[in-house]
Amino acid sequence: MLWAKGLALDEEIHQFTVGCDPETDLHFYAHDCVASAAHVRMLGRAGLLTSAHVLALLPVLKAQYELGRARQVHIARTQEDCHTKLEAELVDALGETGKRVHLGRSRNDQILVAMRLYLREELNEIARLLGQNIQVLIAFSGAHRTHVMPGYTHMRRAMPASFGLWAAGFAEGLLEELAALAGVHARIDRCPLGAAAGFGVPLPIDRAYTAQLLGFSKVQRAATDCMNSRGRHEQALLDACVSIAGVLEKLMWDLALFSCEEFAFITLPDAFTTGSSIMPQKRNPDVIELARAKCRQLRGLANMHREITTGLPSSYHRDYQLAKGPLVEAVQLLQSLLAISQRLIPALQINTERAAAACTDGLYAAHAAYQLVAQGEPFRDAYRHIAGQLSDGTFKVPAELNSDAPFHIGHANQLCLDELAQELTAAITDVDARTQRYAQINHSIWGPL
Amino acid sequence: MLWAKGLALDEEIHQFTVGCDPETDLHFYAHDCVASAAHVRMLGRAGLLTSAHVLALLPVLKAQYELGRARQVHIARTQEDCHTKLEAELVDALGETGKRVHLGRSRNDQILVAMRLYLREELNEIARLLGQNIQVLIAFSGAHRTHVMPGYTHMRRAMPASFGLWAAGFAEGLLEELAALAGVHARIDRCPLGAAAGFGVPLPIDRAYTAQLLGFSKVQRAATDCMNSRGRHEQALLDACVSIAGVLEKLMWDLALFSCEEFAFITLPDAFTTGSSIMPQKRNPDVIELARAKCRQLRGLANMHREITTGLPSSYHRDYQLAKGPLVEAVQLLQSLLAISQRLIPALQINTERAAAACTDGLYAAHAAYQLVAQGEPFRDAYRHIAGQLSDGTFKVPAELNSDAPFHIGHANQLCLDELAQELTAAITDVDARTQRYAQINHSIWGPL
Amino acid sequence: MLWAKGLALDEEIHQFTVGCDPETDLHFYAHDCVASAAHVRMLGRAGLLTSAHVLALLPVLKAQYELGRARQVHIARTQEDCHTKLEAELVDALGETGKRVHLGRSRNDQILVAMRLYLREELNEIARLLGQNIQVLIAFSGAHRTHVMPGYTHMRRAMPASFGLWAAGFAEGLLEELAALAGVHARIDRCPLGAAAGFGVPLPIDRAYTAQLLGFSKVQRAATDCMNSRGRHEQALLDACVSIAGVLEKLMWDLALFSCEEFAFITLPDAFTTGSSIMPQKRNPDVIELARAKCRQLRGLANMHREITTGLPSSYHRDYQLAKGPLVEAVQLLQSLLAISQRLIPALQINTERAAAACTDGLYAAHAAYQLVAQGEPFRDAYRHIAGQLSDGTFKVPAELNSDAPFHIGHANQLCLDELAQELTAAITDVDARTQRYAQINHSIWGPL
Amino acid sequence: MLWAKGLALDEEIHQFTVGCDPETDLHFYAHDCVASAAHVRMLGRAGLLTSAHVLALLPVLKAQYELGRARQVHIARTQEDCHTKLEAELVDALGETGKRVHLGRSRNDQILVAMRLYLREELNEIARLLGQNIQVLIAFSGAHRTHVMPGYTHMRRAMPASFGLWAAGFAEGLLEELAALAGVHARIDRCPLGAAAGFGVPLPIDRAYTAQLLGFSKVQRAATDCMNSRGRHEQALLDACVSIAGVLEKLMWDLALFSCEEFAFITLPDAFTTGSSIMPQKRNPDVIELARAKCRQLRGLANMHREITTGLPSSYHRDYQLAKGPLVEAVQLLQSLLAISQRLIPALQINTERAAAACTDGLYAAHAAYQLVAQGEPFRDAYRHIAGQLSDGTFKVPAELNSDAPFHIGHANQLCLDELAQELTAAITDVDARTQRYAQINHSIWGPL
Repeated sequence: MLWAKGLALDEEIHQFTVGCDPETDLHFYAHDCVASAAHVRMLGRAGLLTSAHVLALLPVLKAQYELGRARQVHIARTQEDCHTKLEAELVDALGETGKRVHLGRSRNDQILVAMRLYLREELNEIARLLGQNIQVLIAFSGAHRTHVMPGYTHMRRAMPASFGLWAAGFAEGLLEELAALAGVHARIDRCPLGAAAGFGVPLPIDRAYTAQLLGFSKVQRAATDCMNSRGRHEQALLDACVSIAGVLEKLMWDLALFSCEEFAFITLPDAFTTGSSIMPQKRNPDVIELARAKCRQLRGLANMHREITTGLPSSYHRDYQLAKGPLVEAVQLLQSLLAISQRLIPALQINTERAAAACTDGLYAAHAAYQLVAQGEPFRDAYRHIAGQLSDGTFKVPAELNSDAPFHIGHANQLCLDELAQELTAAITDVDARTQRYAQINHSIWGPL
Repeated sequence: MLWAKGLALDEEIHQFTVGCDPETDLHFYAHDCVASAAHVRMLGRAGLLTSAHVLALLPVLKAQYELGRARQVHIARTQEDCHTKLEAELVDALGETGKRVHLGRSRNDQILVAMRLYLREELNEIARLLGQNIQVLIAFSGAHRTHVMPGYTHMRRAMPASFGLWAAGFAEGLLEELAALAGVHARIDRCPLGAAAGFGVPLPIDRAYTAQLLGFSKVQRAATDCMNSRGRHEQALLDACVSIAGVLEKLMWDLALFSCEEFAFITLPDAFTTGSSIMPQKRNPDVIELARAKCRQLRGLANMHREITTGLPSSYHRDYQLAKGPLVEAVQLLQSLLAISQRLIPALQINTERAAAACTDGLYAAHAAYQLVAQGEPFRDAYRHIAGQLSDGTFKVPAELNSDAPFHIGHANQLCLDELAQELTAAITDVDARTQRYAQINHSIWGPL
Repeated sequence: MLWAKGLALDEEIHQFTVGCDPETDLHFYAHDCVASAAHVRMLGRAGLLTSAHVLALLPVLKAQYELGRARQVHIARTQEDCHTKLEAELVDALGETGKRVHLGRSRNDQILVAMRLYLREELNEIARLLGQNIQVLIAFSGAHRTHVMPGYTHMRRAMPASFGLWAAGFAEGLLEELAALAGVHARIDRCPLGAAAGFGVPLPIDRAYTAQLLGFSKVQRAATDCMNSRGRHEQALLDACVSIAGVLEKLMWDLALFSCEEFAFITLPDAFTTGSSIMPQKRNPDVIELARAKCRQLRGLANMHREITTGLPSSYHRDYQLAKGPLVEAVQLLQSLLAISQRLIPALQINTERAAAACTDGLYAAHAAYQLVAQGEPFRDAYRHIAGQLSDGTFKVPAELNSDAPFHIGHANQLCLDELAQELTAAITDVDARTQRYAQINHSIWGPL
Repeated sequence: MLWAKGLALDEEIHQFTVGCDPETDLHFYAHDCVASAAHVRMLGRAGLLTSAHVLALLPVLKAQYELGRARQVHIARTQEDCHTKLEAELVDALGETGKRVHLGRSRNDQILVAMRLYLREELNEIARLLGQNIQVLIAFSGAHRTHVMPGYTHMRRAMPASFGLWAAGFAEGLLEELAALAGVHARIDRCPLGAAAGFGVPLPIDRAYTAQLLGFSKVQRAATDCMNSRGRHEQALLDACVSIAGVLEKLMWDLALFSCEEFAFITLPDAFTTGSSIMPQKRNPDVIELARAKCRQLRGLANMHREITTGLPSSYHRDYQLAKGPLVEAVQLLQSLLAISQRLIPALQINTERAAAACTDGLYAAHAAYQLVAQGEPFRDAYRHIAGQLSDGTFKVPAELNSDAPFHIGHANQLCLDELAQELTAAITDVDARTQRYAQINHSIWGPL
């Protein structure tokens, strides 16, 4: 271990402290290689390493990077974490030169920067998947624009609506979430490398240069702030994930309702259902239920992350180690959820007749009141008038509903899907540009000095 | 009640359903008046009300607005909520004309838009208070730039630091939080008015016009999305509050430690302490402890809000009513916390000698290793070399520490306070501009048609 | 204030530290009087007060107790909390004698014991209300024993069930919860009085005697444990409340589903519904939705309490003050919820035909498979056999279902309601006995020495 | 799969639904075998299987049980879960006879009963480890009974205390937790087997017999209650774990403080510390920090479990599948935490001189006030008297402190360790008896019919 000073190691205690790091850190290893390359190049430029050292170190880092990307790395439990593993590889390959790499940094800023590279990459992947979900929702909304269904409030039939309006709401909600990811990106777009253990180092390192090499917009300046932001940045990402899941949860809950025998507005394809071990007739909507439960699980993970990362004085505490697990798990969960929902939405089958039949007369009570208003009655009087008709059984759905009028923005007859599609395209263009920039950095960091 | 249809009311059940709304809704009443004015002006322009109606309604709405701002409104429990109260006032004052105001809207979009006006105003106040905290932290950091103290990791003395670096970290962290509030603002900067119960209305209302009158950048289009965003927007604000509190919590924890007898780096002014009922000698740091606990309480409130607003199918459910309480409580909590911390920070007294004395030799072990590196030793060897000296008692703090060098961005010797101050000014300028714009709207909404 | 030492007080800071205590502490005031009476009697017996002092103090404490019970106490904000208020009343009434009462105790153990008296009383009230809910559920189950409905799994029709079985499940679940309250009672049935600030006092106080006077089974011995249990005991009560609410939440969710137009198995009486401000036809199940949401709010409160009371070193910290609010709020919430549900359950109207009609053929698929098993087929083969029939449309509900057989314990035909009723009676007998014992203590504590 | 009806399987969807079950279910496999044996024996006795069938099935179940205990089972992803795996093994070994085992049960009651057997076993192991922690705390308390240290409130020196009192508080707190586990046991001590999918089966199964074979005290009667208790029972266990961790968290926090350079009351053995990658002088208290963080992580897991298992209508939903992971993780976490703390406590080294030196004069201010009381002054006057002395510098620690007097129960001088030890022995005797009973059942279940 990097800090070994010759003392014997207690196996049980070592297991307790190492925990899941050898597995969890695999997600950060390739990023650690990239950040280490930037660190090494900076040390060279600052005269703290010779060019020969730098030129020796870069190819070994690159080789490790590629192994990391291919998930062909194994971190032994005795190696504790990905940083120890990486230094060990460098020393193995280069001897004394490898021992020079940790100059002017600590594992504290090393994990911070590696996690930030990880976060920005995963954030982009989430944005991409989100975009695809919005796309299928817009398509679904367009395809079912005229398929009426009851709009519900309090889970009671309220006013006429359509499957188009139902889906457009989710599309627009997720579009807001997609836009909100930019705020998370802004938080993590500052480079903590050089903060060392949270107090900097008494060496003339060039933090602006490493930030630039790694494609960060800014340096996260105060070394203390770098450490204090541990957990807070990750939490901002997790909160954004939870907000996305909040939209999906409503979608899944609706599907659970709309596909049950009593509603039967929607049929799930067999591929998205499973059976019972005891009841031969059952087709259960397991995918929907699990997707719904994963939204709650994600809240649980985000909450666990908050529990672990709060309640402490400033600076680094070993407690933070345990936060890596729920972070990685949450990111993977949301990505798999988005991947499934993107397949599920186009596969939904609408039972248009059944949904239309559920649009019973009462749904038009407000419409009828509006017709009385058009004849001069104040709305509250018209409301009570119609309520009276409903109560004594004389209510009739107004004959001329003019139900094809566009009415107003956001009505079932004016869904603004083109606008949504344009906004989506603009947002995804930004996401793609970032993806390309990161790919470029992961390529150029190994290039000539 | 707006929905009364002549049925008798059960008192216990009425209490159960009304809950705290008569008190909580007072926070939204003035905003409801402003939004109602916009609604009425729009109905007039769309030909759904006459000019005479509009001109009659506006002054009554304005009078109610002013009562609302002055907190001179009382909502009777029989009136349920602020919307019922407002319509009752209009009917009281104007008779039949008052009964016309609810045309083309529902309490569902009415509370949504009132809450959004509330949220954007409170968000701005939070931003302002945050700015003041950053300002006093920058000043504190500048004043104590050269006052050394140990930097801690794992709550163990790690490397030399300063009170200036300690405070600069909090300033920079809060500056990031201030920037992040813009993302929350973007979410709530879309107008839900016109969504009615979540499915729009069969009337040619002009949603773009009401959005413009109320100073929103955009219409929140799909009526379904408006309802589905209930809770999600508020949660985004609460998550931002929790993130701010995460920075303050570390500050308070540090103060609790640094001011205890064993550290004694910082003395709290008597005004910020209280005593014991049994022990005459005690001065307890209650303000700090309560400030710290309020950070946790805020997490609790945000979490409660999430509990209440999630787990449901789409559209409105009465469940959401209960979310208003923790929202308002959380906003007030954070504002009072920021108000206290802004007074606390400049009042802290630093015991410079005590802190300097705690900078024991071991803090310079990394420095000593770096001196060996300067003589050509690889870092890892130098590290082990110094570890050996520490172990056998031969370690000496290096004579020439060159401790005044600026070293690098974010080091105690290069705090970048001027940059922080400039960024703060820019951010607060935006906040002030929004404040003025809102004031302008609250004034012009009553103006001539 | 008890700790005042002549320093000027800063109003804003005083407000910050006092918080909601003057309101919240009203819940503990009467209990504080009772515990103070026990303390005073013990001091008299131990020779630390004269009999004259004790005889003077008791009537004043009793008078305050009665005001506290009648909710006729006002705690001024300058008085901070109920303990200060009480000492002030004693000094007001008795002068120097009143100043003697705080000998050998601290506000730390004073609030601990007052809260414990509060908790045990409220716990008993929860138990009583729980018992009444179980009773109406048993009655409902008996009344609807033969009213069939589909049993659902995955919100899909699964097997035949009955309203009797549906309700019996809730009765039995709540009975388990009622039994579990005994464990909470055991935790709080130890007397912390005498722990003072957490380290005892150098005085020969008789802790066993105060414990006995107050009806505790045991002394909570180590003074440190008394302080460390702050929050933990209350949390145990809150966790029990949350578990109860977990049962009720399912009940309310079921009612929300079963009463919507698509199911229509159950009709809610009008008194339990409200209307819409825009849609004249609506009757919304607000009571059910709010009851459901309150189950989540309760989880939020319990979670907030945990946030506030954890994450700290041992001994007292001012942070704990903030935990009193959510505790009291949670207790009141659950009690009001149980009071409403107890009225709601008997008022439910079952639409027996509608529910019977929903018992479609597929529900009998497992029954059909069992008939094949009876003819010798292995179950898994029979299952696939029937699945094939369902798939090719040849499935027929078996003619002889023998559907009146009792089958087994816990089947719809063997609900064991008498056993449940007996267990309920036994549990409530214990609750009533405790209630009487507490009443006896609240009476005898003022009696002759 | 048990429910396969010949439809093609989508690999991505299958992965989504299967999730971690193949790994998580390994914890339940052996228990499933035992419960299946009871089920089979009951079916035989009820005439639903022949003796030949039963005699064929038992040895195969036993073999699987032994593989399960030895963790030599592999569940293929195509097999979904442990129940499918087990039926597949039975069919593999016995052909048609294996296909008979699922008669009269569902995977729903199968997992319920297997989890209950798992829970009661793990609960017992937690109790055992808890007992060992209490034992070392009692020993530590006894060994350091006379080693004085300051007692702290508000993290400020308050009154004289001792390491003995400090440790006794934790011992007594954990003893309360140990007693509270009995309540959890009572909840899970009812047999759900026979509830099938939550509505029983139309077969004359003997639920009392399976309950007895498996050593449950009672049958959980209403089939609906069995399903509704899913999650609630596990949560009760998790809440108990969290409460235990609440005690340990305070202990770990105290150790983090007391072992830092500024306090230095306690030295951690090197084996419980690790080093820094950059600072050669550091020995970090990682074990303590991780133990502290695991207490928070446990709260996170319990909270995630609650998120996943609440918010749903009654009966089974696939959502519950996701709750198994955090349950198992939490149980393992607490057990490993208890195993480490039990080793840590006896290894702590007390720096008696340093702690004694921290007992500065002010700690005796209350003692001094009590001496004035002994001379007749009312306590509040004496308090102000001493406060005045402290303020003007005339305060002196009273000469005759009589500091060896026992004072009262729970004072540092009267720790009642023997009583604690006796109560511990009684509690552990019960735990051991249960352990033996379970072992007996796991043996006799394979015996002759």
